Amino acid sequence: MSNQKISNVYWNNGQISQVDRDNLIGQKGVTIWFTGLSGSGKSTISAALEKELFRRQKLSYRLDGDNIRLGINKDLGFSARDRTENIRRIGEISKLFVDCGIISLSSFISPYRRDRDWVRELHAQSNMGFIEVFVDCSLAVAESRDPKGLYKRARAGEIAYFTGIDDPYEAPSKPEIHLKTDQLTVEQEVEAIIDHLVKNSFIN
Amino acid sequence: MSNQKISNVYWNNGQISQVDRDNLIGQKGVTIWFTGLSGSGKSTISAALEKELFRRQKLSYRLDGDNIRLGINKDLGFSARDRTENIRRIGEISKLFVDCGIISLSSFISPYRRDRDWVRELHAQSNMGFIEVFVDCSLAVAESRDPKGLYKRARAGEIAYFTGIDDPYEAPSKPEIHLKTDQLTVEQEVEAIIDHLVKNSFIN
Repeated sequence: MSNQKISNVYWNNGQISQVDRDNLIGQKGVTIWFTGLSGSGKSTISAALEKELFRRQKLSYRLDGDNIRLGINKDLGFSARDRTENIRRIGEISKLFVDCGIISLSSFISPYRRDRDWVRELHAQSNMGFIEVFVDCSLAVAESRDPKGLYKRARAGEIAYFTGIDDPYEAPSKPEIHLKTDQLTVEQEVEAIIDHLVKNSFIN
Repeated sequence: MSNQKISNVYWNNGQISQVDRDNLIGQKGVTIWFTGLSGSGKSTISAALEKELFRRQKLSYRLDGDNIRLGINKDLGFSARDRTENIRRIGEISKLFVDCGIISLSSFISPYRRDRDWVRELHAQSNMGFIEVFVDCSLAVAESRDPKGLYKRARAGEIAYFTGIDDPYEAPSKPEIHLKTDQLTVEQEVEAIIDHLVKNSFIN
């Protein structure tokens, strides 16, 4: 038992850090936060970026509606309060992935500026990278795309609290990356993010 | 090998899968779930295992009180209901790490069998590995160690719902690994887990 206590002190002094994990997998963990209207292109860009990072042998992980809203946040709805709690939890999870050395790709509408700024501050407090990507297209364009038919249902009054229709979207004031998705190809968008990652030494 | 990765990408309709990520970092994601009384040695073993895995160039990540109770679960207390929600969220987060290809080390008292079995089932539903490690020592030994002075405070009535004192601990009936920490050194405990990981092809 005394051995175990001695080991305890020894091991705790020798804890593995984010820098250790970064070095192990040859990249630097960072949160890339995609924000924008439904239909703006967040998931498309995120999936394409994941694929390009994989081609470059970089490890990223996508947090999105499929693995979050149906999993850890399945107890939450779409009221302002639940949206805030949704983003709070995603911010905390994304920070864990960054701590693990992963390039975390979070794509959520995240319509409220104060929620996104809270996530930014959460990362800043631990000296972790946070890149806000404004996936920007006009409501008219997003609504004309309507890939899931959600705008149509919201206009018909079948979905409440729908961002852009009866719930506000607050655009980022100073995003690290601003993508006008009605003017760029997905390849150009991915390239812009990769350039940013290389310039800021998150990947080489 | 790169050919194999490319075919995986196409097979998955452009999406990167857990298998892709496993191949990229040369291991198979799995949750290692440490359960046991306060003072049983969960954190000590988890930290020692993390270090040994790192030495073997394997990427693991520890979920524990420091980064969970103070982060995503800071809204939760220690009532039976909050404990269940605590474990539910940790189970979901651990599953995300496994999906990312990481060896996730979760060390929490997790006193209720039904909560742990829920996490086990959550992983099984997605064909993900789950290894329950029973960090076993008697209440008397745990209380005599009392590394944080918590048993003393619980006995004095200063902490309510303290596992082993006024809240039950339900031991695992069929854990994958059973460690009697009052009979083994930390090195032996780590070796037992590494052996299990190798035998089950999570690492080589």
